Amino acid sequence: MRYPASILALLDELERLPGIGPKSAQRIAYWLLTSEQADPQRLSDAIVHAKETIHFCPQCFDFAEGELCEVCANPRRDSTQLCVVAEPRDATAIERTGEYHGLYHVLHGVISPLDGIGPQQLKVAELMSRLGDTSISEVIIATNPNVEGETTATYLARMIKPLQIKVTRIASGLPVGGDLEFADEVTLGRAMEARREL
Amino acid sequence: MRYPASILALLDELERLPGIGPKSAQRIAYWLLTSEQADPQRLSDAIVHAKETIHFCPQCFDFAEGELCEVCANPRRDSTQLCVVAEPRDATAIERTGEYHGLYHVLHGVISPLDGIGPQQLKVAELMSRLGDTSISEVIIATNPNVEGETTATYLARMIKPLQIKVTRIASGLPVGGDLEFADEVTLGRAMEARREL
Repeated sequence: MRYPASILALLDELERLPGIGPKSAQRIAYWLLTSEQADPQRLSDAIVHAKETIHFCPQCFDFAEGELCEVCANPRRDSTQLCVVAEPRDATAIERTGEYHGLYHVLHGVISPLDGIGPQQLKVAELMSRLGDTSISEVIIATNPNVEGETTATYLARMIKPLQIKVTRIASGLPVGGDLEFADEVTLGRAMEARREL
Repeated sequence: MRYPASILALLDELERLPGIGPKSAQRIAYWLLTSEQADPQRLSDAIVHAKETIHFCPQCFDFAEGELCEVCANPRRDSTQLCVVAEPRDATAIERTGEYHGLYHVLHGVISPLDGIGPQQLKVAELMSRLGDTSISEVIIATNPNVEGETTATYLARMIKPLQIKVTRIASGLPVGGDLEFADEVTLGRAMEARREL
């Protein structure tokens, strides 16, 4: 006896998720199939609905449901400031501080030669063409304060400075080697405030 | 800006899964929505299909797709031996050893007073009525070798012995305090072979 086919198929799909190994997959499958709290249909619907409705904002490459994302579609945002982040969740973390009112640009990753990720794999060309078109006077680089994040920041600063645009980096106030996403609001807000020119 | 509504709904559902916190949920959602390897539709279908096709075997309470599970439906299994396990994955682990040819009974948990789980919350009454009806001559208790598993084994042994049925316990060969599910086949097979009477 092994598991029935439909459970094996579910385990296969769960194990493909990032960070989910065989043990977690079994635990999740068992919970989905047996717990009174579980609602497999609602989970299934949420997955399909998100995939169907979400695309990337053509301007900043953050997640969007409408044509543009909420930030790009908001005329009251300060269009002279552009904050560059690695992933959508980093923009969400900065929004939570309430300290920033400009626009964003999502790179969808950071430069990481060991993983074969260079500027060509990121939304860097799109960033540069955005800087050519608009009235942006400051680019704030808010990648994580770790090796790849710093490398990416240095690279972008070197690319952007010739355009006569001020380039700043969020302050370390964040623990070095840490993860921007779960910094507390006060720390992250202070880091935004104390940004320094590169 | 927070995430769009459909992403928030997806994150909510993912965070309800056992062992998945906010950080894992964001990582999984991001992967589902952006990775070329991801197939959200297939995951969604697998969840719904498993939930629709899987029920509990009315005899042993393991997962089943047919009316009975594969083991109970197989006339060549030795119906004089009954192996009691906490969860379906434990029966799967024992099947992998190839050392056991009898039937199973899945308790769906172990006795754990701190979590408010006693015999009434488990398939114990069903086990006892099964023992009254059939030709079972040996009950092998294969709960995990930890506090709750040993408590459950002792309780069941006390209940079953008056029925003049031999009650055995899988040998410790498994590391005490460990987890039956991921023991290697040889160790688990030896533990089955060297079971001792309680």
